[in-house]
Amino acid sequence: MEEKSLSDIGELGVIDRIRKLAETFSPNVVIGIGDDAAVVKMGKDLLLFSTDLLIEGIHFRRDYTPPELLGKKAVAVNVSDIAAMGGVPLYFTLSFAAPEELSLSFLDRFASGISASAEMYNLSLIGGDTSAGEKIVIDIAIIGKAEGAAPITRAGASPGELIFVSGNLGDSAVGLTLLEAGFRMSEKGGITSPTSLSKEEEGLAQTLLSAHLNPQPELTLGRLLAERRIPGAMLDISDGLARDIGNLCRASKVGARLYKNKIPLSEALIHFAKKLDRDATDLAISGGEDYRLLFTAPPEKLKEIEGLSRELKRDIIELGEIVESSSEIYIMDEDGREASFSGGYDHFGKK
Amino acid sequence: MEEKSLSDIGELGVIDRIRKLAETFSPNVVIGIGDDAAVVKMGKDLLLFSTDLLIEGIHFRRDYTPPELLGKKAVAVNVSDIAAMGGVPLYFTLSFAAPEELSLSFLDRFASGISASAEMYNLSLIGGDTSAGEKIVIDIAIIGKAEGAAPITRAGASPGELIFVSGNLGDSAVGLTLLEAGFRMSEKGGITSPTSLSKEEEGLAQTLLSAHLNPQPELTLGRLLAERRIPGAMLDISDGLARDIGNLCRASKVGARLYKNKIPLSEALIHFAKKLDRDATDLAISGGEDYRLLFTAPPEKLKEIEGLSRELKRDIIELGEIVESSSEIYIMDEDGREASFSGGYDHFGKK
Repeated sequence: MEEKSLSDIGELGVIDRIRKLAETFSPNVVIGIGDDAAVVKMGKDLLLFSTDLLIEGIHFRRDYTPPELLGKKAVAVNVSDIAAMGGVPLYFTLSFAAPEELSLSFLDRFASGISASAEMYNLSLIGGDTSAGEKIVIDIAIIGKAEGAAPITRAGASPGELIFVSGNLGDSAVGLTLLEAGFRMSEKGGITSPTSLSKEEEGLAQTLLSAHLNPQPELTLGRLLAERRIPGAMLDISDGLARDIGNLCRASKVGARLYKNKIPLSEALIHFAKKLDRDATDLAISGGEDYRLLFTAPPEKLKEIEGLSRELKRDIIELGEIVESSSEIYIMDEDGREASFSGGYDHFGKK
Repeated sequence: MEEKSLSDIGELGVIDRIRKLAETFSPNVVIGIGDDAAVVKMGKDLLLFSTDLLIEGIHFRRDYTPPELLGKKAVAVNVSDIAAMGGVPLYFTLSFAAPEELSLSFLDRFASGISASAEMYNLSLIGGDTSAGEKIVIDIAIIGKAEGAAPITRAGASPGELIFVSGNLGDSAVGLTLLEAGFRMSEKGGITSPTSLSKEEEGLAQTLLSAHLNPQPELTLGRLLAERRIPGAMLDISDGLARDIGNLCRASKVGARLYKNKIPLSEALIHFAKKLDRDATDLAISGGEDYRLLFTAPPEKLKEIEGLSRELKRDIIELGEIVESSSEIYIMDEDGREASFSGGYDHFGKK
């Protein structure tokens, strides 16, 4: 009999086994493993903790990632976890491994990206570790605080609530496809491509590459949603809509019905999906790393949500509703039929 | 002109460049990058943060590391950073990457080691991230608290203070040499070796392999030292005595005089150093990963330190004294002459 390996249980299986380790809690742990961030009581404060690992060759490739944007993104994805709880990020630690032949200019440009993000989100770097390694490894642990509002978890969705998303989906996944096809973006946003592009196409490509290389966490929106006690449940979409609505439903013990024609698609996504001969909506449903907020709220909050959308000049799109039937997710097509959808990204999956 | 790389500036150079990022502090950051742990004010509490990265092929090899002990050590080295501040560890996050062909039994045994350490130190695992990767990568971020005493930093040593270490040095480095020579230890402590050993030698080898594979952070000692306000400065020896006394002196802007014949050597170290044709004291001075506490204290605390040593049944050895001459370190041999010493471990160093 062959010995079983990680690929037999997939990423969720690995996470489940690690989660089992976390079963004995200190009474001060309000939320442990399994949400966007952990919540811990400390005196009068509720602290938030999260960590994200980025590995060269898995999460990014050096040839298409400007070092500044790598630094920015490493911080941004952690800030997004705090945003998804409605919190305020405060401090972070940085572990960094790299081959010793890595150029100093790479290190300095990476560091300036970290710096720029830290300044933008008003974060202090308070610790770290460095090592040699064959591949670049970046691990950031972030510490935040729930300020003036209880943290919003994944587990609070109730049947009858509507489902919202804070912007277009799928841009990051198509941006990645373009990078793999040889498109490049400089840290200032300049685009080069393997084939000649019109000025307009260049702008569209920039939207997609930026979505992947330079994601913008929804910190203000997350905090205001929490302060105004709007969401039932909330998370950030890192693994793709399909997988993350599944995560929300599993945590909340509910199901969801999403309407395919309501899923927001950028003009850029539609244009390049066509060129790539891919279904735009499928890309938006399965593509990861959009870092939009996905949240639920009762219908009577709709006006307040529209007000918030105008106030922040951000689109907040209603996608569907939470239903009973525990953990089942339906995606309805234009004719009201259930459409199939494919899952998100699994680091250890065989498929 | 050839472009410069990380190996040109070494690990300290990399750390310095990352430290520069941390120059703008929130007023709540009491101690930032550069000590064993960062110290942050949160309400009435002083929180401690630290992080440690372990990479397969750099920090450990899979062929000689029982997975349980890998899990234990990953937690222990972080606990040691909290111990070195005199704090109490509370929570940790775990980032874990591994090749998808890694066996499930490895994962389960690693997880049980994490669990055992967490229970031993009364820690809660509150978050994490997982990824595929060519090599195993483990990054733990730990959160602790200064309880009933101000944290002890590296920066408080004054001329005239004595220098102490909490046990034998060099065992871990020789343990590593034995592992590389084909010695093996099971998670229960059973020893196998490439050549036949006497029962007595087996016991000595076990001491050395345990020191490397299963280090024991000095949590109780660190906390009691802080509570009783004994140390001027303190750190844990992870990079080797030579390098870490240098770190302490640089932070405190002092120098040190160490007496070669006072450096505590285990019987096991002496035996195997001879077999390996190496100088035992040199190994104790330059070898890393002992995780002993190195601290300074004024001579009038000597009685109190002896009392603490008896109370905990732990050796606390006086090694030398702090001197003025900023950041110069002398190691004196038996004849009172300055002896040379070689440095500790540099991840990016060329030498």
